[in-house]
Amino acid sequence: MIAVLKPNTTIEQRSHLIDWLKGQNVDVHISEGKEYTVLGLVGNTSNIDVELLQSLSIVSSVKIISEPFKKANRKFHPENTVINVGDVKIGDGSCVMIAGPSSVESEEQIIDIAKKVKAAGAKILRGSAFKQSGSPYEFQGLKADGIDMLIEAKKETGLPIISEIMSINDLAVFENVDIIQVGARNMQNTELLKELGRIRKPVLIKRGLANNLKELLMSAEHVMAGGNEKVILCERGIRTFETYTKNTLDLSAVPVLHELSHLPVIVDPSRSTGYSKYVEPMSLAAAACGADGLMIEVHEDPMNALSDGASSIDPEHFARISDKIRMIREVIK
Amino acid sequence: MIAVLKPNTTIEQRSHLIDWLKGQNVDVHISEGKEYTVLGLVGNTSNIDVELLQSLSIVSSVKIISEPFKKANRKFHPENTVINVGDVKIGDGSCVMIAGPSSVESEEQIIDIAKKVKAAGAKILRGSAFKQSGSPYEFQGLKADGIDMLIEAKKETGLPIISEIMSINDLAVFENVDIIQVGARNMQNTELLKELGRIRKPVLIKRGLANNLKELLMSAEHVMAGGNEKVILCERGIRTFETYTKNTLDLSAVPVLHELSHLPVIVDPSRSTGYSKYVEPMSLAAAACGADGLMIEVHEDPMNALSDGASSIDPEHFARISDKIRMIREVIK
Amino acid sequence: MIAVLKPNTTIEQRSHLIDWLKGQNVDVHISEGKEYTVLGLVGNTSNIDVELLQSLSIVSSVKIISEPFKKANRKFHPENTVINVGDVKIGDGSCVMIAGPSSVESEEQIIDIAKKVKAAGAKILRGSAFKQSGSPYEFQGLKADGIDMLIEAKKETGLPIISEIMSINDLAVFENVDIIQVGARNMQNTELLKELGRIRKPVLIKRGLANNLKELLMSAEHVMAGGNEKVILCERGIRTFETYTKNTLDLSAVPVLHELSHLPVIVDPSRSTGYSKYVEPMSLAAAACGADGLMIEVHEDPMNALSDGASSIDPEHFARISDKIRMIREVIK
Amino acid sequence: MIAVLKPNTTIEQRSHLIDWLKGQNVDVHISEGKEYTVLGLVGNTSNIDVELLQSLSIVSSVKIISEPFKKANRKFHPENTVINVGDVKIGDGSCVMIAGPSSVESEEQIIDIAKKVKAAGAKILRGSAFKQSGSPYEFQGLKADGIDMLIEAKKETGLPIISEIMSINDLAVFENVDIIQVGARNMQNTELLKELGRIRKPVLIKRGLANNLKELLMSAEHVMAGGNEKVILCERGIRTFETYTKNTLDLSAVPVLHELSHLPVIVDPSRSTGYSKYVEPMSLAAAACGADGLMIEVHEDPMNALSDGASSIDPEHFARISDKIRMIREVIK
Repeated sequence: MIAVLKPNTTIEQRSHLIDWLKGQNVDVHISEGKEYTVLGLVGNTSNIDVELLQSLSIVSSVKIISEPFKKANRKFHPENTVINVGDVKIGDGSCVMIAGPSSVESEEQIIDIAKKVKAAGAKILRGSAFKQSGSPYEFQGLKADGIDMLIEAKKETGLPIISEIMSINDLAVFENVDIIQVGARNMQNTELLKELGRIRKPVLIKRGLANNLKELLMSAEHVMAGGNEKVILCERGIRTFETYTKNTLDLSAVPVLHELSHLPVIVDPSRSTGYSKYVEPMSLAAAACGADGLMIEVHEDPMNALSDGASSIDPEHFARISDKIRMIREVIK
Repeated sequence: MIAVLKPNTTIEQRSHLIDWLKGQNVDVHISEGKEYTVLGLVGNTSNIDVELLQSLSIVSSVKIISEPFKKANRKFHPENTVINVGDVKIGDGSCVMIAGPSSVESEEQIIDIAKKVKAAGAKILRGSAFKQSGSPYEFQGLKADGIDMLIEAKKETGLPIISEIMSINDLAVFENVDIIQVGARNMQNTELLKELGRIRKPVLIKRGLANNLKELLMSAEHVMAGGNEKVILCERGIRTFETYTKNTLDLSAVPVLHELSHLPVIVDPSRSTGYSKYVEPMSLAAAACGADGLMIEVHEDPMNALSDGASSIDPEHFARISDKIRMIREVIK
Repeated sequence: MIAVLKPNTTIEQRSHLIDWLKGQNVDVHISEGKEYTVLGLVGNTSNIDVELLQSLSIVSSVKIISEPFKKANRKFHPENTVINVGDVKIGDGSCVMIAGPSSVESEEQIIDIAKKVKAAGAKILRGSAFKQSGSPYEFQGLKADGIDMLIEAKKETGLPIISEIMSINDLAVFENVDIIQVGARNMQNTELLKELGRIRKPVLIKRGLANNLKELLMSAEHVMAGGNEKVILCERGIRTFETYTKNTLDLSAVPVLHELSHLPVIVDPSRSTGYSKYVEPMSLAAAACGADGLMIEVHEDPMNALSDGASSIDPEHFARISDKIRMIREVIK
Repeated sequence: MIAVLKPNTTIEQRSHLIDWLKGQNVDVHISEGKEYTVLGLVGNTSNIDVELLQSLSIVSSVKIISEPFKKANRKFHPENTVINVGDVKIGDGSCVMIAGPSSVESEEQIIDIAKKVKAAGAKILRGSAFKQSGSPYEFQGLKADGIDMLIEAKKETGLPIISEIMSINDLAVFENVDIIQVGARNMQNTELLKELGRIRKPVLIKRGLANNLKELLMSAEHVMAGGNEKVILCERGIRTFETYTKNTLDLSAVPVLHELSHLPVIVDPSRSTGYSKYVEPMSLAAAACGADGLMIEVHEDPMNALSDGASSIDPEHFARISDKIRMIREVIK
């Protein structure tokens, strides 16, 4: 961290500030420039209150040099993290297809769709049992029963499964779930993240609706700091002023996250655009810019889906997208 | 809810849609206009997937008529809700001053500042023990010990206390806390909100950083649907493109929320602006547009505060603001 | 347009409103529903002040049914508009490569880079002579001289040219420019747009930094209403809370605009991401989701570019991107 | 400007960078720290392409120390700028009331309302003749005739007048207009701003819908750099995700702009909130946080206003607001 002092700072003021900084256990290196004096702060600067420092009358500005995320940082871990889920590898350069309904609706439904998406190229099955909903009066998911149904579908098809957790108190229910998903609205529920740092199962974190990529990486860091380094990042659209799409898919997140971090990056074209008609072009675009996988809502009968029918495609459409993605990945290699 | 059909919709298509809607337990009233046919949906429309309906090829557009929040809605509860906390009334037309440090740092500190803010006009004492922090490597608060210290300060001064909860598993610790605060990053942690709906203690909900007021009211609804109607709303700044302030205080939230809801509305000028120099003008403005209270960070020695020193003012400054607010409220009555 | 009246509206109030609406030359069709009365407004509703209507005490809500853009609307013009610029066709299903430096710097530079981008697959040459800059103290471009240099480069290579206009008073200078560009900051400079509606030359309009797609289409409408239907839309990134990229490229704009409008859609991966390292992945993604063309900043020596060196790539890199895009377009056909 | 080099930068790389910087006419002062080397750039750094510098592989980060606005900067002009318009002083500590209809509709209307707002406390008359409208099919204002009507109202009442300019080609029409307004959508129309820098009449610049305060000050700088230092800043609401108000009024802009600049700051509570019911609370709040004036839409008969009836109040309401504002300003002195 670097603090730039204003030109008219007196020696006394400067000494007073340096004493205060040292009292917070950081070393201070003074560089006197022609116009500005620069204090380089070395050591554990995470205790320094940057905003307070910035608000002092003698401080012109403060610059944080190092990124606040450490374990998620590619700088300290240059190789890609490859996460193994059964036989599936996420982050090895392939584009893993994750598919399934928005919500688990019944055992029959989930087994049926699981078989179909497997035949169409899916490697992992998705389905929500605990639903994040905007209203207390809406469908909240089948909860533990839904997870049991997913596990049946896994037994039938061999597909690993991913589902969303809403409260750490449900963790026991997720014992046989392969990847635990943290939803966008819980991206900064740090108590949940910290608890997921104590387990040793892959965790997929969805980017919050108005969060930037540094914050997404800090959420990964909250998990990784606890010892669980199996984190998957997921871009699922951010809130902007555009209304023709539900959210705005930020595909530049893919190359940016790949540069900053060694963790795999998945794209969700269904939740982000909100409409099935945009799922194909956005899936192809995500594959073209290097996503490590796609998470797509597939439903046998979107019009009668219990949730998110508007963004769901049918298995045949999913198969066509899978084929095109395979070809695109040949091109960009 | 109203669905407008496209001009070229056939009778068969319309019947098919109406059957589907009736299958979801809503009554459909058809109004044939010159250019458009309008379907009025009556009954429990909360099960209707609006986005799905909107995405159908024969549907031109869908309009939700009634607000999704019921218990928080002034339409069904015209009188202001007044929340009693000890002798203090929130929502009765007065502007209640809530003050205290960002974090509880020690028993001595919190008792000392409690006495000072009480003398300066505060009616409720604030102080965080469980800290929401952006990094796992930063100060996380004194936790249960901090709450105990707050309770000591309450005993010494008689001031009711408010503090933030981060996980429902900590609820027992909050038994003697008068108002439980839900932070901005947990505004849509619906599992936490639902649990707080089961208790009978006032809950203050801070608006999320990129949430709109309808979403804030839906968070209140998640609590109220459980039976706890003692909810206080808090505007604390939203994320915008402005960088000279930490967040952008949206003061129009005060009259808008007062119009839409009967719940009291508190403003936090400290967290929103992020700098102590802006706390006074924004406090006066909040009082002038009718806020039911202000929550202000006050610290004896901001430069050595363990958190948020940049936005903290000292007790003398707080006293001056309290005086001016009293006079402004005389004017606007 | 549809206005929904509140349940308790009296017959007198309703009549009064209908008289007022008829006084504004719209026909009113009344549909009485069980709970709501719906007024369907037919005719030239563009004179109705929607916000005023919405603010009336007896009006529950107002819904605009038809899109405000007419000439740009695919509904009234189902075929794609194909714009001919010399031998180049924009909008015919191909992905036209537009390349060149951010700024025209000298005749030698622009001729040299024109030859190189042509060899590398570019069909149109770009280069700014009138520069939009954030500060009055920065480089403002070579102005009319720069346009002359571009025209020399056109003569040497046969490439059509595109350049940005800042003021309608410069129009004469653009006589031999093939496509006139309106920059993001001028997207709602309606006086400029209206004047460009009077000429018969293609106009490329860049989406404003915080504008939605409806507003972009309304800017096209301002040009088209004057009789110039040769409009090209350009997505160049919007302002979001992300800081690792300069702006956020909204690629879903491509399929959305293709659905709403018959006009061609170009993507600018240079200005949007702001960094040359992200130009390739975002170019490939844009090609994969169906963009009608790409506008890419190419400079022989980015480090010594007079502007936007950070986002410029060199001609060799541009050639590699062009090759991959050709292959991707084979796949998605 | 300060550039921080990465730890592993070689002497050769550093020399190469320094040569390049010197080639751009800036002096470079090297401060070698323990971990980082800091280059202090002194001189005319406005030519340095910050983004390019930041993108270099050996550069860790770049920090701009001085604000890019000079003439608008309070640092170089500590005293408040007071702008005289006839007998009215803007920026002298008072809160100047500017009022009038959104649009000039007829000579009779504007003279009538001018008399009424004058009686109710207004010191300046507003009214648009050239209308910024989102659609080419909407009312565009009475143009030059409207300005003539405003001038008649000025003659009748003695009130100075303010009106919006849309194109510099209309400048002659504004000869007898006292303050020229630049609308939010033209805030970054730099060609217009530069031309207004050549005249010697006060210019009021409205903040753009998604612009930050630094950009607003740079727009002021574009005018001031031309020699016209009579600039008034106006906060009129920014675009956020909130939909219950038309825009979000950012009142913290008032103290922030007062700190950064010596220019007067006006608040527009009508355009920002979009609804007349919020005009009073937001006006009082603006007065309480120190605004130098308010610009309020007042119409004799809002329901029949040609534009913006939803946000217009009547003269009696304006008089009540004026009274309360006078009392609030007594309190905050």
